[in-house]
Amino acid sequence: MSWENKILRIVRVVNAQEIGTLGRLLSAITAVGGNVGNIELLNETSVQVVRDMTIFADDEKHLELILEAIRRNRGTRILDVRDEVMALHLKGKIAVRSRYAIDSISTLQKVYTPGVAEVCLKIAKDPKLAHTYTSTCHLVAIVTDGTAVLGLGDIGPLAGMPVMEGKAMLMETLVGLSGVPILLNTKDPDEIIKVVAAIAPTFAAIQLEDISAPRCFRIEEELQKQLDIPVMHDDQHGTAVVTTAVLTVACRKLKKDLSKVVIGQIGLGAAGNAIAKMLMGITGNPVWGADLSEEALVRHEANGGKRSNLKEIMANCDMVVSTTGVRGLIKPEMVRKGQIILALSNPHPEIEPEVALKNGAAFAADGKLVNNVLGFPGIFRGAVDTWAPRISDEMLLAASEAIANHTKDDQLVPNPLDRKLHQAVAHAVALKAIEQGLARAEYVPYIHE
Amino acid sequence: MSWENKILRIVRVVNAQEIGTLGRLLSAITAVGGNVGNIELLNETSVQVVRDMTIFADDEKHLELILEAIRRNRGTRILDVRDEVMALHLKGKIAVRSRYAIDSISTLQKVYTPGVAEVCLKIAKDPKLAHTYTSTCHLVAIVTDGTAVLGLGDIGPLAGMPVMEGKAMLMETLVGLSGVPILLNTKDPDEIIKVVAAIAPTFAAIQLEDISAPRCFRIEEELQKQLDIPVMHDDQHGTAVVTTAVLTVACRKLKKDLSKVVIGQIGLGAAGNAIAKMLMGITGNPVWGADLSEEALVRHEANGGKRSNLKEIMANCDMVVSTTGVRGLIKPEMVRKGQIILALSNPHPEIEPEVALKNGAAFAADGKLVNNVLGFPGIFRGAVDTWAPRISDEMLLAASEAIANHTKDDQLVPNPLDRKLHQAVAHAVALKAIEQGLARAEYVPYIHE
Repeated sequence: MSWENKILRIVRVVNAQEIGTLGRLLSAITAVGGNVGNIELLNETSVQVVRDMTIFADDEKHLELILEAIRRNRGTRILDVRDEVMALHLKGKIAVRSRYAIDSISTLQKVYTPGVAEVCLKIAKDPKLAHTYTSTCHLVAIVTDGTAVLGLGDIGPLAGMPVMEGKAMLMETLVGLSGVPILLNTKDPDEIIKVVAAIAPTFAAIQLEDISAPRCFRIEEELQKQLDIPVMHDDQHGTAVVTTAVLTVACRKLKKDLSKVVIGQIGLGAAGNAIAKMLMGITGNPVWGADLSEEALVRHEANGGKRSNLKEIMANCDMVVSTTGVRGLIKPEMVRKGQIILALSNPHPEIEPEVALKNGAAFAADGKLVNNVLGFPGIFRGAVDTWAPRISDEMLLAASEAIANHTKDDQLVPNPLDRKLHQAVAHAVALKAIEQGLARAEYVPYIHE
Repeated sequence: MSWENKILRIVRVVNAQEIGTLGRLLSAITAVGGNVGNIELLNETSVQVVRDMTIFADDEKHLELILEAIRRNRGTRILDVRDEVMALHLKGKIAVRSRYAIDSISTLQKVYTPGVAEVCLKIAKDPKLAHTYTSTCHLVAIVTDGTAVLGLGDIGPLAGMPVMEGKAMLMETLVGLSGVPILLNTKDPDEIIKVVAAIAPTFAAIQLEDISAPRCFRIEEELQKQLDIPVMHDDQHGTAVVTTAVLTVACRKLKKDLSKVVIGQIGLGAAGNAIAKMLMGITGNPVWGADLSEEALVRHEANGGKRSNLKEIMANCDMVVSTTGVRGLIKPEMVRKGQIILALSNPHPEIEPEVALKNGAAFAADGKLVNNVLGFPGIFRGAVDTWAPRISDEMLLAASEAIANHTKDDQLVPNPLDRKLHQAVAHAVALKAIEQGLARAEYVPYIHE
């Protein structure tokens, strides 16, 4: 199943109370290419059952086809079709809130004039105190120019806002940070660097998001050079951290040694380049790389990688990661017996995991499972909690190990809403920062309330 | 009493239960120049009374003097001295929060991938939808370069953060908007314009804050020219709106006609220039202006004002507003009988209101009472709710009238925490925007929940 670009509707159906009805209904939906998410039982009597079913369709036309298939199912009626996604987005998903109420003139005098002046003067005398007495210690900018939003491409910053707000929600929900979307109306790398550097005093860290390659490399590098707070392009390092964690889990399951397998990376854009770099850092071995861009291959070689191509990689590598954006690039017959394949492109993977498994792969997953949400919240929390000036490769690796260690035997990846996972990632990242001498504040481990 | 620059402490005192003890205690505090805010009764028995007193002192040394005076008071002991201001600022005063919980994978799929993609694509097709389906409709940037923070001067953006967070708290508390502090590490007007314009797609409006004159004039003007969302420098227009409201109330109390009195403005910086302009707009008469800067006087004349000086203004004007930053500039003997005097400089007014009244003034107030918090929340809410591209002079005037109308007969200004006041200001501003054809969205009046 490909996840992005789908539309989601809640369909309320009433079924006759009869063995097999739900099964037949699901088969009917699948037969026309529909996918079913949550199924919630609302009401059950001796004669009928009412359920809310989450339906994923390719588009409005496809949705109509699915609804028609539901209607044709014997004993089934549709009571309602709701667009909960749009409803949940009404007026946006985030808000800036006071951490406590201004409930009296007395409180007003403490948080505003005249009380606030004393705090201002203390910070003016010792700017480091801003980290203790202002919200800069938990504000994280989520910056985008909208040039590479999800798998949708250059749809502009405003159209990217729902994704940025989603990231901000996850920042709060999973690790209690305050994500602040910043939408840029410029695509010029030099201007982006200038603008982000100019507003940086507001924040504890900068998350770059959905900025296209190769522009993203220089923007991140230059900003990190100029600023003394962490700057991380999530599409690069977040993806690398999570991918490496899943590969580690795959090795554990298959009893393989990551440092002894031959690894291939197909697609050397923002994500692919970072994945290859991280894997080479861990194993000490060159990753075989394939890309249509000569620039990308040269960069890969400069990173210590081996220049290769799709066929060579599929024929020779034990472990293959693909991030090309090309649906069905990996043909079923290319799969080698026992191969580990992560086909990460969204909305459509290079090969569907089921097809890869059917053709001999020992382990396969797509971009739906291998999602950045497993990584970025804890990475930022750990870096921010130690007031580290940057996120080192070792801190990223610690995050990856924490995710792998948190994956239970019956899981390919942990539950993204498991607060303990993110707490563990944050703690691992913070401890590594301290070990490397990067911490600038006394570390108090983050515990989700 | 001058308010800014003061330090605030909560002093817990136990007194003997004896008539006159509290009175003697307050006299002792006043005798050494201390000021008392809130007095909270915590516990009372037949023998003693425990109270929390909010004490304002000039500095730590002065505080020690006041505490000593309290200790010397017969039958009084200090139990505790607390710095609640610093405690309330710990880790900052604001946070970015989700508007509802991500409580299941099913919700995650709606607010993040895959559900979010549909919202992104709809906005990409019709960018106006961002106003309905993202938080950009309620996010207001609170931008500062830290060059004129409170009455403290150029203390830098980081030291200004507690004030920006205070404004953000008030935005939420009073009108439900999401204020986002943006601290700039540049003081160059051209760079400020560029940076703010570059991040503007994120916001429904821009509040410029604590930016020094004359730089603030061009920054505001140029940004408003470039952007199709409201840009307002609060220190100019917020101050003008509130000052005009208080003058209107003074005229009402004294049964004078604003358009028939001679008005003088002493100090033509950010606030003074805007006050004079607004008063000339209402009355159609030139305001007499005084300033040491020739540039400021030339600007005042270009606005239609009359060039004057301190002595001339005090001798000839029925109504005098001063915003010079010079303590005690207006000598008691300069006050004319029946004069209306607003001495607005913080931390120290040009003349203490009590002194002005004693010397014949009919109405006097300082910058503690005439505070922007009465204006900016409602002004922004009204402009944002109608999606107006700018805040017109007429909208500001409507806000000023709403504040004046909301002032009860026994008040000089309304209670700043009265939600109904801010609702009334927002509504007046919105109706004026609609009347002027500036509204771009269907208007739903803001009601505080």
